[in-house]
Amino acid sequence: MQIAVVLYPTFTALDFIGPYEVLRNLPDAEVRFVWHEPGPVTADSGVLMVGATHTFDETPSPDVVLVPGGPGSSAAARDERVLAWLRAVHPTANWVASVCSGSMVLAAAGLLDGKRATSHWGALSALKMCGVTAVSDERIVRADDKVITAAGVSAGIDLGMWLAGQIAGEAKAKAIQLLIEYDPQPPFDAGHMSKASATTKAGATALLGRDMIKPEPLKASVLLAWDQAIRRVRGRGAARRTA
Amino acid sequence: MQIAVVLYPTFTALDFIGPYEVLRNLPDAEVRFVWHEPGPVTADSGVLMVGATHTFDETPSPDVVLVPGGPGSSAAARDERVLAWLRAVHPTANWVASVCSGSMVLAAAGLLDGKRATSHWGALSALKMCGVTAVSDERIVRADDKVITAAGVSAGIDLGMWLAGQIAGEAKAKAIQLLIEYDPQPPFDAGHMSKASATTKAGATALLGRDMIKPEPLKASVLLAWDQAIRRVRGRGAARRTA
Repeated sequence: MQIAVVLYPTFTALDFIGPYEVLRNLPDAEVRFVWHEPGPVTADSGVLMVGATHTFDETPSPDVVLVPGGPGSSAAARDERVLAWLRAVHPTANWVASVCSGSMVLAAAGLLDGKRATSHWGALSALKMCGVTAVSDERIVRADDKVITAAGVSAGIDLGMWLAGQIAGEAKAKAIQLLIEYDPQPPFDAGHMSKASATTKAGATALLGRDMIKPEPLKASVLLAWDQAIRRVRGRGAARRTA
Repeated sequence: MQIAVVLYPTFTALDFIGPYEVLRNLPDAEVRFVWHEPGPVTADSGVLMVGATHTFDETPSPDVVLVPGGPGSSAAARDERVLAWLRAVHPTANWVASVCSGSMVLAAAGLLDGKRATSHWGALSALKMCGVTAVSDERIVRADDKVITAAGVSAGIDLGMWLAGQIAGEAKAKAIQLLIEYDPQPPFDAGHMSKASATTKAGATALLGRDMIKPEPLKASVLLAWDQAIRRVRGRGAARRTA
């Protein structure tokens, strides 16, 4: 079973390391990290580098596709080669999954049109902009029989566990859960917007903003917003013409 | 604040990506990945590569040290240059932390002599062998005022959150928790030995064994066991001679 993780620049590492650590333990799992070319890809932190192992062309029919989030998701969502690959592998894949703002990339590829999906809380409004029913109160949201999205960053572990259960059954998923000792005991309880105080929300928004003001991601996200607005305006024009 | 993650071959990625994703959001955090030489280091999966950014010599006084676990921990625990570096940076570091079998490396460096510590359930007996009081029912175990150990793999996120609270206060730690949406909702509840069925335990042990039968780690862990046994025998001889 081939599991392809899309590894674009300025990814958020925990987004995919969580599900990778779960899914690599499935029977016959072959994990690969896919980008335009093999080689080091740098995370949002600017210091962590992870190696892309395969190109998109070398990976025409993965069984599972996983798109992580990160400040670079806006740029990835405007990369026509990424979108073309997602559209090409979607029909034969068993699962196409995203974590965090990775759902923006699935949306841009048209895989979430008119469907329910989730994302990091900081990216939910951008997801709505793409014509998606953005869900803020579910950690894992199933768009259809093969496309599934998870909330922000650490939600990828829950997604990985859920997928493991779907793919290999509950007994195997539980064995993996024990293997990675996924018995979470957070020392605080502020991990969801519904639980966080105003101070916590302000602090988290400041941290999120710190990542977002890096020039390239900001530029790409502004361009993505324009893309979507133009698409809507053109759509209305077309609707009027055909009416 | 400099955070040094030790990146030995056949590490388990989630062990350190969890705390990295938390701690990198602390004020003035400078994360570096440390090994004998900079360059790609391959994970236990054999497919994930992460870049070491700095050598040990370039990193003489980190504020926080993090040692992950993985099949390669036995080899790292027998690497005298790793142990010498840990002993050298320990006095000036604020925190020396391990996740999973990373505590074996701290133990081999002598930082856990006669102290309480934890590890992955599969490594607790090896930890005992090193003269450590191995704790199986606490997810984060504090050995003393600066050395702290976490249970297996995903426990690193809890450790990271706890350390963030200690270092930067509860308000900052909660903001980071919201940023990474650490609001875990595992679809199963088999993440600790006390909760897992016999079937789950057998399945997890088989998965663990699959990693451990790779020739190099097995060799290193056998050698580590011999090291400890010989040290004990020699210690007894010395005690008799001085008695």
